Amino acid sequence: MTFKRMQLFVLSLTFTVALGGLAVAQSILPLSSWKEGKTKQSIIEFVADVTKNGSPSFVPPAERIAVFDNDGTLWPEQPMYFQLFFAIDRLIKLAPQHPEWKNKEPFASVLKGDLKAALAGGKKSMFEILKATHAGMTEAEFEVLVKSWITTAKHPTTKRLYKDMIYQPMLELLTYLRANNFKTFIVSGGGVEFMRAWAEEVYGIPPEQVVGSSIKTEFEIINEKPVLMRLPEPNFITDKKGKVISINLHIGRRPIAAFGNSDGDLQMLQWTTAGTGRRFALYVHHTDNEREWAYDRMSSVGHLDKGLDEAQAKGWTIADMKKDWKIIYPHELK
Amino acid sequence: MTFKRMQLFVLSLTFTVALGGLAVAQSILPLSSWKEGKTKQSIIEFVADVTKNGSPSFVPPAERIAVFDNDGTLWPEQPMYFQLFFAIDRLIKLAPQHPEWKNKEPFASVLKGDLKAALAGGKKSMFEILKATHAGMTEAEFEVLVKSWITTAKHPTTKRLYKDMIYQPMLELLTYLRANNFKTFIVSGGGVEFMRAWAEEVYGIPPEQVVGSSIKTEFEIINEKPVLMRLPEPNFITDKKGKVISINLHIGRRPIAAFGNSDGDLQMLQWTTAGTGRRFALYVHHTDNEREWAYDRMSSVGHLDKGLDEAQAKGWTIADMKKDWKIIYPHELK
Repeated sequence: MTFKRMQLFVLSLTFTVALGGLAVAQSILPLSSWKEGKTKQSIIEFVADVTKNGSPSFVPPAERIAVFDNDGTLWPEQPMYFQLFFAIDRLIKLAPQHPEWKNKEPFASVLKGDLKAALAGGKKSMFEILKATHAGMTEAEFEVLVKSWITTAKHPTTKRLYKDMIYQPMLELLTYLRANNFKTFIVSGGGVEFMRAWAEEVYGIPPEQVVGSSIKTEFEIINEKPVLMRLPEPNFITDKKGKVISINLHIGRRPIAAFGNSDGDLQMLQWTTAGTGRRFALYVHHTDNEREWAYDRMSSVGHLDKGLDEAQAKGWTIADMKKDWKIIYPHELK
Repeated sequence: MTFKRMQLFVLSLTFTVALGGLAVAQSILPLSSWKEGKTKQSIIEFVADVTKNGSPSFVPPAERIAVFDNDGTLWPEQPMYFQLFFAIDRLIKLAPQHPEWKNKEPFASVLKGDLKAALAGGKKSMFEILKATHAGMTEAEFEVLVKSWITTAKHPTTKRLYKDMIYQPMLELLTYLRANNFKTFIVSGGGVEFMRAWAEEVYGIPPEQVVGSSIKTEFEIINEKPVLMRLPEPNFITDKKGKVISINLHIGRRPIAAFGNSDGDLQMLQWTTAGTGRRFALYVHHTDNEREWAYDRMSSVGHLDKGLDEAQAKGWTIADMKKDWKIIYPHELK
């Protein structure tokens, strides 16, 4: 190797190292869709505190568990939960095989396009719709159905694919935490298999880090092949206290950071912040009626009342979508 | 930088790269407690097939899920499940607070030291013992109890700490798989919280990768602090078909490799090998009455009958402890 070539070699090495440093810096510093201010600062300070070697708040990488609610926290939940749109799309597709639905609620109202009437029966109606659309097939078949829906179905208001309606600032937050050796989990009231079908592609969260509500399944051998059949019976609802129970059962370690948007996430935030050492809790507050939806204490979907009081009392971070987020969705990126 | 210094710099870089390569080679080649032969070869060939870029059997790292039974697969289960020793040790400790146990089975027999009589009632007796020893405290309190037991309690036959009685060849297998970017999970009929208290230290498997049987828990706020209380009610038993149901619920992705030792693992091995692409299943066969225990078709603990037939018929790997393992426990390492 001549001196000249060696010089180039060293230069290129230095350049690579520098670029490597830059890549890290870029993924650590940014949160570029978050406006400068108290909210963004509280996130950055927390991450700095728990990751800096020698800091009194240092947390070893294995214990850097962050849990995220999904509906209303990572993507919208208006005018109703997106999984319910999936159920209704599927109900309409199945209707020709179920002539009896024309005279049976809540199906009759769904087929007439009157969702308000269909859901008037509350949780019971919702569960009837879920039973008819989410059970009676194998896990593998269900996955195919969801994957097909998520790549084609569009939101009634925005006319965009649901999977393109994820919150860009939250996506950057997931990336930022992972770049700092956090393990990011979803802990949501949504169906666990529904979310797993696209969470890895959309959020970079692998199936084993998705925790959600479930129905019972049954192991059977059909034509010498083992299958898991989805049964029309609830197994567990990962909401409110159920979020903490699920975190304990699935993760087995108390998170050090939790992110939610409703009273359904309150116990998860309480559980997370009650641990020893440095902790972080953030509520996404839906305040932007122009770019998204504005709702909190009076809304049935994403009801945020007690949680808002407790967040203010305890000094948890409240992300005001209108004030704290430069953009909402990835398509707004320039 | 002078030419000399630059030369040294380049040399040191090259050296680091070479050392890096060596470190990988060292952790990939060994399985040093496995004797050379068909069994060891089948493991190495499988790993080579799924990890070699461009191989028709290549599996991306994210999908390299390996599941391990615990009792009888990673550590012994004779003369009875180690968790039952924990339960009995605890029962004896609690006895002074429960004078009524003296006249109530299965407690009376346990306290008399007659375990055979105590367990004569089968699962019902076992569950009575578990209820009395595994519930009625918070998750945090239970963890402290298990951690204290696992660092002090000794096995009646070997007089060694239970946590030192793990199978060295299986430990090397876990390390080998992880060095090849596998994610290793425990999927065991044992209690999930019992195993999590020591699995990370002993096997290098973090809590979120431990799947096991569970009892119900309840979220409560006591003195303004949220706690999870352990209730004397079963939640789910991760055995037989339940292993597949738990894999689906907790991991959400079909494993490509599964390791077990009894008929209780059969469905897990069936489920794993029924996936498309290259798959691997291994049964640990307890054949060594001198160094460990020898049992299979006639044993109630670790009953291996149908599984042995199916393994032979389907060409799964059978690890014969006597013939395939140079040593059993870590203390035999020279």
